[in-house]
Amino acid sequence: MISINIVGSGNVGTQFAKAFSLSGKVRLQQLYSRRADGFSECAADVLHDLSGLRPADVTVLSVSDDAVAEVASALPFSGSLVVHMSGSLPMDILDGKNRRGVFYPLQTLSKSKPVDFSDIPLCLEAENEADLKLLRQLASLLSESVHEVDSRQRKALHVAAVFAGNFTNHMYRNAQRICEDNRLDFALLKPLIRETADKVMTLSPSDAQTGPARRNDQKTIAAHLDFLGHSPRAQVYELLTQSIRNDQL
Amino acid sequence: MISINIVGSGNVGTQFAKAFSLSGKVRLQQLYSRRADGFSECAADVLHDLSGLRPADVTVLSVSDDAVAEVASALPFSGSLVVHMSGSLPMDILDGKNRRGVFYPLQTLSKSKPVDFSDIPLCLEAENEADLKLLRQLASLLSESVHEVDSRQRKALHVAAVFAGNFTNHMYRNAQRICEDNRLDFALLKPLIRETADKVMTLSPSDAQTGPARRNDQKTIAAHLDFLGHSPRAQVYELLTQSIRNDQL
Repeated sequence: MISINIVGSGNVGTQFAKAFSLSGKVRLQQLYSRRADGFSECAADVLHDLSGLRPADVTVLSVSDDAVAEVASALPFSGSLVVHMSGSLPMDILDGKNRRGVFYPLQTLSKSKPVDFSDIPLCLEAENEADLKLLRQLASLLSESVHEVDSRQRKALHVAAVFAGNFTNHMYRNAQRICEDNRLDFALLKPLIRETADKVMTLSPSDAQTGPARRNDQKTIAAHLDFLGHSPRAQVYELLTQSIRNDQL
Repeated sequence: MISINIVGSGNVGTQFAKAFSLSGKVRLQQLYSRRADGFSECAADVLHDLSGLRPADVTVLSVSDDAVAEVASALPFSGSLVVHMSGSLPMDILDGKNRRGVFYPLQTLSKSKPVDFSDIPLCLEAENEADLKLLRQLASLLSESVHEVDSRQRKALHVAAVFAGNFTNHMYRNAQRICEDNRLDFALLKPLIRETADKVMTLSPSDAQTGPARRNDQKTIAAHLDFLGHSPRAQVYELLTQSIRNDQL
């Protein structure tokens, strides 16, 4: 049985603690939370002082990007495997006194919505083959989508995820605003949103592209820009239309 | 039984001809196609000369936006109900010699992928209550999502659909490019794409927004912009980050 520590009781830490616990194949050795009520739902030893942490097979840091380096240095042990869960940080931000690795889940996790881990890509990195093997074993307990991704690739993936997730949601937000301003129910757009996402499960996004920009339908583009007037949305419309045009050159 | 003509054998016209035919409650009176092989799969009277078209309860123009006015004027009858299917054109672009209406399906239809019409919003407009009632009857044969939407609202909806559909797909495309450039499989992002769309089925997009821009995480934003360098994608990243920031002010 693999023993793990989880440091940080935020959204990601809490979800992973539950998932590892449910797998029945991991021993949650110790959990660390700054907050008094962190990990309250987990049946494990919860610490509020880092100095009480003992080495485990893997110590997982699920703290904010800004805190990773500091927490890694503050660990009261050395020579053990310590991983962070950040998409944007390199592996070597971790203090070299421990063996280093990364365990990055590529998904948007919210506290309110339960997560099915089985298809969440887990992106792994480690300094040596034995540690990578251990991380692969651990990841496979949760997900069928386990990948070895180096620091440079992980950074690329994180940027790509901002486009595919955060910016996509912002497009929905813009659409919602336009609906609100015109007494239209945002729900009208939900089938389109679902179908647009569904399409790229089988088609390449470049083949799935439709719309006035794709067709270079200048008349409709001009009418839309006229409709948007001087709103900041007009600027977004213009740049993305240009970007779609450039993409085809 | 409602009798209809369909003018135009493009993607939308073909899909609707099939769907109406399958409903068993519509008589496809005449279909018009410029192309010799248009509507080849439909068991109906297919014309290649508009002058042979006879009035039906509803004549549906599923031609390109640029052709709507011209085709409406070229119809060899008057006093009958004629509707267009465009999101961006006003109702009164149709020749006033016939009664006018709009039958706008808010969805992205592709020829290759079969369509489930039952949840596609159909947005209707007509000049009088009796015609609106007839269009409602017709639309209800295909979909459970039937809405009365005036010309101004329909224009808004079309712009909103560009954001929620076309621009969203372009975000996927950008993510795909970043993956390609870094030897990463685009499939890694598919769970995120699905979850991002799923989230707004129940959450408002403003509540669902996450990411460095939302958190105002300047360090990560700077690192991402540095990663993107001078690519056109950097410009898109910068504007959308700013746009997400502004949205919270």
